[in-house]
This record gives sequence, structure tokens and C-alpha cells, in this order.
Amino acid sequence: MKEFWSKRIYNQQAYTAGEQPKDKKYIKLNTNENPYPPSPKVKEAIMAALNDLRLYPDPNCTEIIEAVSEVYGVSTEKIFAGNGSDEILAMSFLAFYDPGRPVTFPDITYTFYPVYSELYGLSYNLIPLNEDFTVPVERLFRSPGGVVLANPNAPTGIALKLYDIERIVSENPDFTVIIDEAYVEYETQSAVSLIDKYANLLVVRTSSKSYSLAGLRVGWAIGNENLINALNVVKNSFNSYTLGRPALAGGAAGIRDREYFEMCRKKVIFTRRKTAESMQELGFELTPSSANFLFAEHPKINAETLFHALRERGILVRYFNKPRIGNRLRISVGTDYQMSVMVEQLSDILRHY
Amino acid sequence: MKEFWSKRIYNQQAYTAGEQPKDKKYIKLNTNENPYPPSPKVKEAIMAALNDLRLYPDPNCTEIIEAVSEVYGVSTEKIFAGNGSDEILAMSFLAFYDPGRPVTFPDITYTFYPVYSELYGLSYNLIPLNEDFTVPVERLFRSPGGVVLANPNAPTGIALKLYDIERIVSENPDFTVIIDEAYVEYETQSAVSLIDKYANLLVVRTSSKSYSLAGLRVGWAIGNENLINALNVVKNSFNSYTLGRPALAGGAAGIRDREYFEMCRKKVIFTRRKTAESMQELGFELTPSSANFLFAEHPKINAETLFHALRERGILVRYFNKPRIGNRLRISVGTDYQMSVMVEQLSDILRHY
Repeated sequence: MKEFWSKRIYNQQAYTAGEQPKDKKYIKLNTNENPYPPSPKVKEAIMAALNDLRLYPDPNCTEIIEAVSEVYGVSTEKIFAGNGSDEILAMSFLAFYDPGRPVTFPDITYTFYPVYSELYGLSYNLIPLNEDFTVPVERLFRSPGGVVLANPNAPTGIALKLYDIERIVSENPDFTVIIDEAYVEYETQSAVSLIDKYANLLVVRTSSKSYSLAGLRVGWAIGNENLINALNVVKNSFNSYTLGRPALAGGAAGIRDREYFEMCRKKVIFTRRKTAESMQELGFELTPSSANFLFAEHPKINAETLFHALRERGILVRYFNKPRIGNRLRISVGTDYQMSVMVEQLSDILRHY
Repeated sequence: MKEFWSKRIYNQQAYTAGEQPKDKKYIKLNTNENPYPPSPKVKEAIMAALNDLRLYPDPNCTEIIEAVSEVYGVSTEKIFAGNGSDEILAMSFLAFYDPGRPVTFPDITYTFYPVYSELYGLSYNLIPLNEDFTVPVERLFRSPGGVVLANPNAPTGIALKLYDIERIVSENPDFTVIIDEAYVEYETQSAVSLIDKYANLLVVRTSSKSYSLAGLRVGWAIGNENLINALNVVKNSFNSYTLGRPALAGGAAGIRDREYFEMCRKKVIFTRRKTAESMQELGFELTPSSANFLFAEHPKINAETLFHALRERGILVRYFNKPRIGNRLRISVGTDYQMSVMVEQLSDILRHY
């Protein structure tokens, strides 16, 4: 029954988030969380912020914006903060794209992009990735309405070089190009360096992965002031206070602790390489990942079987029941120990198959 | 410059939230915050939740929904949680209302309602309040697209009786009627008791006022399962994780602490009455407020003058530069001490005028 539903949402297909089991028995490698806790400074900052919970938070999210400004060397007018990068993406689709002017994105990418489009009655052109899952760069030129691109892409983990990102931005001069850099910190060149050169470029970031703050909900966008103004209009027409006091204080503290950030980032990159090698030894084919996850296929055993076998052994990963990638597992990079358990279990599953 | 902005937001007028001064020198009576801190259990619960910040929160907000279910005696399928009631209202306008079918609300009410409408391209019929700022109930019958009503209304503070709310709901059987109960806990009858009888009734609540949790961002809606499903479709097409771990844990703990809630609620009601009497003695005219604020006008001195004079004396209140209510101050109910300082200052201002 859908009585009283608006026409716009009548056939809307919502996004399905990865499973969040409530018991803790799993090695959880299914939602690209960081295996390390956030900087200890996050906890301190949140605890200090708890004394003012009765007061509304700063609607302008100044704490986050100033932290991002300092760390990324961008002036504050070029920064927008939101309740996770998903919220910022959702607001961006409304702020920058128009019905009748299709938005362009790859066929295999973050599955929230078509969901946002449909929510706002936008059409979209899906550009098929190449056979090897790389992005066919030229096919993203001259989009009739704008481009959204995850770099590195999800769930493939494959990154485009800055040179190619710049070509995409410059070849779409009339529309906003959104570069979703959720996974950029794991050895991808960021497009933030281009924002002063291109007025149509918006770079979206999250603290969920590289800052270990998935549970706090803090994201930000960097772009020309004019684009940031548009996002503020949408935000202030939707919810004045998108970030609560714990998120503002904790997010800012996490962003500022560079030493801790670097340490966790390097550990994940190290473990990713080591795990990829071990999986290749077991016969897996992997895309060259620049993200905090691996995207893997085994020639002898299908992804669904592997997914369930791993789950029975207490390891959660993700697979997508979709064309072209239906036989691949997406495995988040955990700690060295978690990944060695995972590889051992894969080895055991393959041995008994 | 609005280059790259979508047509939909090109002329969008955003909502302006009340001032949040960063220095603490003011007696802050401008945004209807609770003068008392939240339950001490909130802090404890948040601190316990800080150990899992690296993990995504529960996208279904089960903790909040179960707390609301227990406290308000409503089954969990009839409850939706969001990042403050503003977010829930924003999602509701998209979920339930259609372009070409005007939504009905009073001319004087929460100024976010027309903002939401415009964001989604909805038209609306403004029904003028009666001369005494009461709601002309019958004029909300048979709306061509739905009704949104704050009860008690803001910024008037005047409440409708449940009998009249029921008439409005039953006289709009084909469209969703949203009752925004942000201020209901200060002596207004809630419409939650009607949700099983009327499939078109959605009641929206917040923890910002009566639970002293404005800084945490937790709201909820109660209604028929079908309406809740629609809200979940919108939410899961916008942002899977609207509430972070601190908000889920702290919000649930606050909602559950009934003794503390009752204590704060009664203090605010007591102080409201006392302050209203003192202001009447000074010659102010006040609406009969059932909320945690007063709405007052003085025959001899205009609201803007009073606003600035109070501000100079370290007291922040709010006034609205709008037809019909431009000469009224909205004054949040603070502690007994804060309100006696405010009344003293008003008395002094009037004496020197």
C-alpha cells in the first residue's frame, strides 16, 4: 500500500546500505570502515562538547570548515560541511542538475548516484566502464547535464590520474562536475588542486573512511565559492543544523590530527598490498585498487558462494548482484590480522571446494 | 553569480535560523532552547558509544525508535527517526505532497514550511490566522493537497485542542496531515493518540526543546506504517545514515529518562506562567502560550527597539520582520533567574523610554 505517497516517490528504489550486524562476532569487511579507531583527540573533543548539548549547534559548521581549511589549504568560503558525504551528494544533485539534462556517470559506480537522480526526477546517461573496469575518459566529455565520478571508483577501486580528471572537468565547462573522493586518501591524486582553475568542479570528501569516523557522520565539499553558495541554499532550505555538536567537535579534532591520520592511512595501504598478493597466490584476479578495499574474482568459485562461505566462518564481505560485477567480492581492508584470517579462510574454502 | 545552479534553486529563499553567538555572554532566549542541561544519562550513553565511532551507525536508528516506542506506547513500525525534526519535515514534504496540489498551512507559522514547499516546487495556500492568532480550524478542511500545522503554533504559542486537530485530520481524508508537535510537551494535547484511527496523520516530534538536546539533532515521527514506509524510502534515497552513534545513544537515553524530563518540563511551565504575569504587569500583551516561549507586544514601544535594547543589555530574544507580527517579540523561557533578569531589564527599558 502506498496511499498518500507523493507521485515522485511512488516508484522510487532506495539505496541498500551494507549490513550492520548488531552482535560483534564478525570480522567486518563489508562497508569499507577503517579497522583502526579514530584519533584519541576525537573522543576528548566530543566529551568537551557534551556540556553544551542543550544549545543548537553552529549552523555554519565553522569548526569543521576551519579544520578542513587549515589541513587542505583551501579558504573557508570554498568549503561546505554536511552530515556525511552522502548528504552532500544528495544536496548536490538538487543544487546543480536539472530535469531534462541528463547527468553522466559510469554504469559501475557508487549505486547511490542513480538513486539521487531518481529522487529528484533527473535522467542520467550510464557510460559503460571499459572491459578492465577503467573509466572511458573521453566518453565523459560534453555531458548534456553534468558528470559525477568517484575517484577512485567504487566498487572497482581503480583511480584516474589527475590529468584525466582535469580533462573531464575542462571538457564539461557548462555543467558541474562532481568528483567523489570518498576513497582518495589511499594513493589517488586529489582534484582539490584544480578548484581555483575550474569554477565547475566540486570535490566531495568524507571522514568515514580515512578518518575512522563512519559513526560520527561528517563530510565536506570543496569548490568555487559559487558552488558552495548553492549547497548552502539547499542545506538552509532543508535543515539548518545538519551537524550536531559531537560531530562538529569530533570531526574537527579528527581532521586536525595529521600524524595519527598518516599512520592509519599507511597501515591500510600496506595491508592492502600484502592481502592482494596473498589473494593472487590463491588464484584471485584483482583490480589495481587505490582504495581501502579489494575487488576480487576467482575463476573457479562464484562470488555468492564465497560470500556465504566466508559469512559462515565469521567474515562479512560484500558482493553486488549486478551485471558485469556479479561474480566479484568487495573486501574492505581490515587490520593485518583480520586480513590474514580472511586469506586463510579463503584458502580453506578453496581447498574444500 | 549563480552559474551552474539548477533552475529549481535559482530563486530559492533559504530559512534563516536564530543567531547562535559564539561568545557566551548573552542570556540566550532567542531559539527556544531548554535552559536546563539534558539528563545526565545522555552524557553517559554518548561516552559509551564513542568506542565504536569507526563503525557506521545503525541506519535504521533502532535505539531511538525503541525508546520512543516504549515511552509513547506506539509500536516500532509506526516510528521514524531523523536528524532533527526539520529533516523529517523536509523529507515529509517530498514524501507526501505533489506539485499542482497546494499544501495548506497558516500564514503565521513555522517559516520553514514555505521554504520546504519552494525547494520541491510545491505550491501552498496560506490561511490567515484569526485576529487573535488562533487557527481558523474549518478553513483547513478539504485542502487540495494536504495540511501542515504546528501545534502549538509557532511563534504564537497558541495550541489547538485535540478535538479540533481530529476534525482537521478527518476532514482531509485524501491527503497527509502533518502535525508538528515541536512544542507539544508544554501543556498541549498530543495527536499521537489518533494515529491508529487516521491513516493520513503524521505527528512530528523533536528532542531539541523538551529533552534539552538541540545540540544533538534527534527527531522522530509517529504515524501509520504506510506513512513511515514512505519516509524510509525518501531517507534511504537521500542518506542512509542520518543519525550518528552519539545521537542514537544519547537521544535514546534522554528519551527514556522520564523523571528528569518531567522535572525540566514542569520548571519551564512554572517559569513561563510567572514571566507572563510579570510582563503583563509591565503592560505587555501576550498570547496564551502552550509552548516554551512567550509571544509579546507592548503598546508603547516597538519590537525592534525592544530587541536591540535587550541585546545591548546582554539578552537575546527574537522578532520577525513580517506582516501582522512585526511588533512582537518571541522570548524563549529560560530559568527563573534568567527570566527575572529579562523582566527587570524590560522594566528598566520602559522606564527610560
